[in-house]
Amino acid sequence: MISFENDYTTGAHPKILQRFIDSNFESLSGYGTDSYSKQARNKIKLACACPNADIYFLVGGTQTNTVIISSLLENYEGVITANTGHIQVHEAGAIERTGHKILTLPEQNGKILPEQLEQYLSSFYQDNNHEHMVFPGMVSISYPTEYGTLYSKKELEQLSQICHFYQIPLYLDGARLGYGLMSREADLTLPDIAQFCDVFYIGGTKVGALCGEAVVFSKNNTPKHFFTQIKRQGALLAKGRLLSLQFDTLFTDNLYYQISKHAIDMAEELKKCLKEKQYSFYLESPTNQQFIILENAEMERLKKQVRFSFWEKFDANHTIVRFATSWSTTKEEIEQLKEIL
Amino acid sequence: MISFENDYTTGAHPKILQRFIDSNFESLSGYGTDSYSKQARNKIKLACACPNADIYFLVGGTQTNTVIISSLLENYEGVITANTGHIQVHEAGAIERTGHKILTLPEQNGKILPEQLEQYLSSFYQDNNHEHMVFPGMVSISYPTEYGTLYSKKELEQLSQICHFYQIPLYLDGARLGYGLMSREADLTLPDIAQFCDVFYIGGTKVGALCGEAVVFSKNNTPKHFFTQIKRQGALLAKGRLLSLQFDTLFTDNLYYQISKHAIDMAEELKKCLKEKQYSFYLESPTNQQFIILENAEMERLKKQVRFSFWEKFDANHTIVRFATSWSTTKEEIEQLKEIL
Amino acid sequence: MISFENDYTTGAHPKILQRFIDSNFESLSGYGTDSYSKQARNKIKLACACPNADIYFLVGGTQTNTVIISSLLENYEGVITANTGHIQVHEAGAIERTGHKILTLPEQNGKILPEQLEQYLSSFYQDNNHEHMVFPGMVSISYPTEYGTLYSKKELEQLSQICHFYQIPLYLDGARLGYGLMSREADLTLPDIAQFCDVFYIGGTKVGALCGEAVVFSKNNTPKHFFTQIKRQGALLAKGRLLSLQFDTLFTDNLYYQISKHAIDMAEELKKCLKEKQYSFYLESPTNQQFIILENAEMERLKKQVRFSFWEKFDANHTIVRFATSWSTTKEEIEQLKEIL
Amino acid sequence: MISFENDYTTGAHPKILQRFIDSNFESLSGYGTDSYSKQARNKIKLACACPNADIYFLVGGTQTNTVIISSLLENYEGVITANTGHIQVHEAGAIERTGHKILTLPEQNGKILPEQLEQYLSSFYQDNNHEHMVFPGMVSISYPTEYGTLYSKKELEQLSQICHFYQIPLYLDGARLGYGLMSREADLTLPDIAQFCDVFYIGGTKVGALCGEAVVFSKNNTPKHFFTQIKRQGALLAKGRLLSLQFDTLFTDNLYYQISKHAIDMAEELKKCLKEKQYSFYLESPTNQQFIILENAEMERLKKQVRFSFWEKFDANHTIVRFATSWSTTKEEIEQLKEIL
Repeated sequence: MISFENDYTTGAHPKILQRFIDSNFESLSGYGTDSYSKQARNKIKLACACPNADIYFLVGGTQTNTVIISSLLENYEGVITANTGHIQVHEAGAIERTGHKILTLPEQNGKILPEQLEQYLSSFYQDNNHEHMVFPGMVSISYPTEYGTLYSKKELEQLSQICHFYQIPLYLDGARLGYGLMSREADLTLPDIAQFCDVFYIGGTKVGALCGEAVVFSKNNTPKHFFTQIKRQGALLAKGRLLSLQFDTLFTDNLYYQISKHAIDMAEELKKCLKEKQYSFYLESPTNQQFIILENAEMERLKKQVRFSFWEKFDANHTIVRFATSWSTTKEEIEQLKEIL
Repeated sequence: MISFENDYTTGAHPKILQRFIDSNFESLSGYGTDSYSKQARNKIKLACACPNADIYFLVGGTQTNTVIISSLLENYEGVITANTGHIQVHEAGAIERTGHKILTLPEQNGKILPEQLEQYLSSFYQDNNHEHMVFPGMVSISYPTEYGTLYSKKELEQLSQICHFYQIPLYLDGARLGYGLMSREADLTLPDIAQFCDVFYIGGTKVGALCGEAVVFSKNNTPKHFFTQIKRQGALLAKGRLLSLQFDTLFTDNLYYQISKHAIDMAEELKKCLKEKQYSFYLESPTNQQFIILENAEMERLKKQVRFSFWEKFDANHTIVRFATSWSTTKEEIEQLKEIL
Repeated sequence: MISFENDYTTGAHPKILQRFIDSNFESLSGYGTDSYSKQARNKIKLACACPNADIYFLVGGTQTNTVIISSLLENYEGVITANTGHIQVHEAGAIERTGHKILTLPEQNGKILPEQLEQYLSSFYQDNNHEHMVFPGMVSISYPTEYGTLYSKKELEQLSQICHFYQIPLYLDGARLGYGLMSREADLTLPDIAQFCDVFYIGGTKVGALCGEAVVFSKNNTPKHFFTQIKRQGALLAKGRLLSLQFDTLFTDNLYYQISKHAIDMAEELKKCLKEKQYSFYLESPTNQQFIILENAEMERLKKQVRFSFWEKFDANHTIVRFATSWSTTKEEIEQLKEIL
Repeated sequence: MISFENDYTTGAHPKILQRFIDSNFESLSGYGTDSYSKQARNKIKLACACPNADIYFLVGGTQTNTVIISSLLENYEGVITANTGHIQVHEAGAIERTGHKILTLPEQNGKILPEQLEQYLSSFYQDNNHEHMVFPGMVSISYPTEYGTLYSKKELEQLSQICHFYQIPLYLDGARLGYGLMSREADLTLPDIAQFCDVFYIGGTKVGALCGEAVVFSKNNTPKHFFTQIKRQGALLAKGRLLSLQFDTLFTDNLYYQISKHAIDMAEELKKCLKEKQYSFYLESPTNQQFIILENAEMERLKKQVRFSFWEKFDANHTIVRFATSWSTTKEEIEQLKEIL
C-alpha cells in the first residue's frame, strides 16, 4: 500500500549506504573524532557560511532538543515555545525530566510571533513576583513548524533581535529543515538561519538519513564541556562514523537540498491533486506536510487504500489527517494517490 | 597502522549493510513497530530460550544503562555496582543525572562476589539509620567485566539468589556479551543469563553492529509504560529499522556467536604472542580485552607502530595498556603485531 | 501602617509560643518521632474522622507540594492543575525540577470543573500518540483556590469519582484550608475532604503557625519509604517538635477552626466596608482573600496608608489588588481601614 | 532519663523564645526581606569580618547542603567529599537527586587532607578519558567533621589554595560550627573560615536554635538568582522572621560563642569522666561529640540509664557509640552520668 504516513518510513538515500560500504573496514576513532566527522563539519560550516560554527552530531530529535535545551538553560530558567511545539506536546516530558519548565505561548499557525514574545518577556520582568517564577531562559521554535508553516526572514530577524535584547538564546529545531529551506515560499537560507539563531539543528532523520541531527552553534557559544554533557545524557554515539558519513554525504554536491526540493515538488503535486478533488485544507502549508479535513466515512474508505496520519478530531463528523511527502516519495505514488482519490 | 585500540573502530558486519540495502525502500512503521523488529525479537527469545521475554532495541550502552536503571529504581533507591563499573567511572554521571546514587562495592577482578553483596545488604538493613540512607534497589554487573573477566555460572546463580531474597532485580550489562559467551572459560549460556538475571542487554555496538543494544526483560517485569520512558529519555529511534535489521541479522544463523568466537580466537592468538614475547599481564582475561603492563619507553616505541589504549598508570615507570580484538580483527593483523613485538 | 498584604505577616498564635516555652527543656527525639508528634497526629485523625490516616509534618507549602507530587507520580506521569495553580505559576518550577510536567486546564474562577477533567482524561486515552505524551498521573487542586474561591461538596465528589475511575490520586493543597472550611459558603468539612481526597495538607503557615503543613494520606496510600523521600528532598526537620507542638496546639480545643473563623469574620467586615464604598470586586470570594479593581491613582493614594498586594494589571488605568485578613487581623484594623477608604 | 543522644534534643535558647514573643504581632514582610533579617545579616558580617558577605537563612542541614551544592555545580560536575561525609552517607541521596555525583576520597580522621585533594585533582586532568567522567566541581568539608575532628588553620589554607588553583569553590558545612570554633584545640576563627572558604554555613539547629542555618557567600560569589534557586528547591520560608530572629539573637552579645563554649566545657568534663572510668575512645575528638568503644553487654546495661547513639559495630563484641553534649547540657547531667558509669 502506498504511504504518505510520515517522512521517516523509508531507509536512507542510497549514496549514504554506499558510503557505509566503502568505508566499512577503515579503522576510525570513536565518539565523533573520526576524519569524516571533521570533513562533514567543514562542509556544513561552508553551507552555513559560518566558518566558526561548532558542530556536533546526535542521533535523534527528542534527544537533540533535550541535550541542547538542558545545556543552555540555567537551573532557574525555562524555555519558551509555542503550545503546539513538539517539545511541549510529543516528547513525553523529556525537557521537564531535565528539571526545566516549558513556558508556552499560544501558537499562531504553529508559530510564535515577535509581538507575542516581546509582550511575554516585558511582562515577566514587570511582575513583582517574578523571583517566585521560572525565568525565561531561551526561545525554541521549529522550522518548518509542526504544522508545516514557515517563519519569514523578517519574523526570524525580529525574534532574534528580541532574544538578544533580553540576552537569551534563540534555538531553531530543524527536524525538517531541508523541507523548509526548499519550500517555494521560503525566503530564508541556511546562512540566514546561522546568522539569526544562536543554535539550531539540521535534521537528518526525516531528510534522507537513517538517523542523525547536526547541531550548529553559530556564535562561539557552545556550552562548556558540551561533549561531556552529551555523554552524561546517553547521547554520545560510540561509532561516530554512523553520523558523520551520513552528513558528509548529505552535504556533498548539494544532496541535502536536492532531495529536499524533490520532496517539496512532490508535496506541490499532492496539494494540486487534493485541491482539484476539492479536499478541504486545515491550514495552508508550504512544506512537505499537508493537513486535510476529511469527512469520517471518507477517511475510513481512504484508509483501506493509502496510509496517512490521524492528526486530531475536527468535529463530530470530521477529522484532520496529515499527508507527508519525503525525499523518497515517487511520482508514481502521487499518481496512484490521484487514482484512489 | 593496525589497531587494537578497541572493539568499535570498524563499521558493521557486511551482512548487516546488505540488509540495509535490500530493505531500503520498504515503507516501515517507526519506533520499533516494524515487522523486522518483531522478527528480531522472536529470534532473540529463541536464543534466550525465553518465549515470554520482552525485548527493546536501544542505540548505545550508556543510554541503555541509564534507561534501564532509572526505570527500575524507586526514587529512594540506588544501584549497587563494582567500583570499577562503567556506570560508576566512565559514563560522566549519567546515572546520578537521573537522581540516583551509585552504591559501590570494591571490585574483585572487576567483579562483585556473592559474599560481598550479601554482606552489604544484610548490614544495610541492620543499620539503625538506614532510613536516612539510599536504599539498595538493584544490582548491576557487567559480563564480561570492564577488565575482561567473567562471572562463573555458580557466581551468577548466587548473586541471583541474593537479589531475589532481598527482592531487588539483578541487571547484567552485556556490552560485550558475545565475547563473554564465546570465551573458552565461559560456563554460562544466553539461556542461563536469561534465567538468572531479571534484565540484561545484548551488546551490538561492540559485536558487529553499527550501533544498537537489545534489552531483554526475562521475567514479565518490564517497567510500566517502558516505551514512554524510553521516549522521555530521548532514546527512542524514529527509524527503528536501523536497530531491528541489525539484530535480525546478528541472530540469524548464529552470526552473533560466530563473529564473537572469531574475536575470541584472535584474542587467544594475541595472548599467545604476548606471552611468548614475555609481556606481563595486569590480570588474566579470558575475553577479547587484554591488559598488559608496559615499561614506558617500550610503550612509546610500540605506539608508533600499533594502536592500543592507555588504561592507567601502573607505577612511575610502567603503564597498563589494553589490546582489544573484535569481530573484524584479522589473522593478518595478529601476524603484523607479532612482527612489531 | 496597617497591613492586609497577606496572611503571613505576623508570628504565631500566642498559645503556640507558650507551648514552646513550656516544653523547651524536655529532651525529645528528632525527625517527627517525638511524643508530641504522635499526639498531634491523633488529634488530626480525630478531626478528619479518619482513624487510619497517615500524617507527616513538613515546613512550607512549596516543599509540601513538591514532596507529595513527586512521591506519588511515576516517572512518565505529570500532574493536572488549573493554569492559575500555585504550583504552575509561583513555585519557580519546583515540580518540573523533580522531572515532572504540569498539565494545565484553563481555570474557572480558579477551579478545575469536573467536566473539564473528564474531557481531558478521556481525550488523552483516545489520542493515538498518547505514548509519546506525558501521562496524567494525579490531580492537584487548591482549597480555597489562589483566587479565594471554593469547591462545592458536589464538585469535589465528582472530581474524586473521575480520579478514581482513571485510577489517579486527587490531591488538595490546603495552604489556607481553615479559611475555606470556615467560609460561610463552605459546604465541605474536614472529614469530607479526607473522604474525597487521597492526600491533602492542612496549612499551618497561613493559619496561625510560624511554619508547618500537616500532610494527610487518608487511604492507606502513603508512598513507600515516604520518610526517606522527605529526607532526600531536604524536607526533614531535625527538631520535629517545632512542627508537632504547633499542630498539637492548633488541634486542641478547636483552635484551628476558631482562629480561621475569626479571619473569615474579619473578611466579611472588610467586604462589607469595601462594598459600601462602592469598590469593584474582581470576583466574588467567600474566603479571607478579596480581590479589588482599583483605579491606578486611587491605588497610589491608598498605598501610602495601608499595605495590600499588587495582583495583576486589569487594564491601562486599573489594577487588581488583594486584601487579605488572617487569624491575627483585629477589628481595630478594619475600623482604621474604613476611615482610610 | 538523661540524654547525650545528640545535640538537637532540646528546644531553643530561652532568649530566642523571648524574641518570638516580643515581636509576635509586628507585621513583617516575608521570605527574608524583614528588618530582622537585615539586622541579623549585619551582625554575621561583622562576626565574619566580611562586610561584603552575602547571607541567606535556610531551615535545615540537608536542605542547605543541597541548595548550595546544586547551585554551584555545573551540570557536568560533581562534589568531592570524604567518604564519611554526611552528604555521602546520611542524606538519603539528596545530592544525587539534583543530578550530581559525589566524588569520595578516603577519610583521614573524618577529614580530607590537602595532599589527597591535590593528588585527586591532578590525576583527573591527566586521565585521557576524563571527558567521559564527572568533573570535580567543588570540595565539601565539614567543620567539625562527622567524627568531631577539626581541620587546622594550615590544612584549611592549603585546601583553599588547591581549590583556587583548580578554580573550584571550597565549601564548609558548619552544622556544628560553634562547637568547632570554641574547641580548645581550634586555631581557626570565623573570619579565617570566611577568608579560606568560598561559601559555608553557620549551623543553628544544633547550636541553640529551633531550626536554621545561615549561609555565607564570602567572595561576591552568590549564584545568580539564588533566591529563586532556594524557592524552586522548596527551601524558601514564608515567615522569614522564624530564622532571622533566631540568628539575630545568636549573634547578639556573642551568644553563639558563649553557648558553644559551654557545650565544649561540658564535653571536656564528659571526656575526663570517661577517661577516668577507663573507657576506650574510638578517636580523639576535641569537640562536642565523643565516640566510645563499648563492650556490648556494657552498652546494654548503660542504655537503661542514659541515652546515647549507636554509631557502628566495632567488632563482634564491641560497638562504637556517640555521646554528644550541646548548648543545653547541664553540669547536673554530667554528674548523673558519672554516677551511672
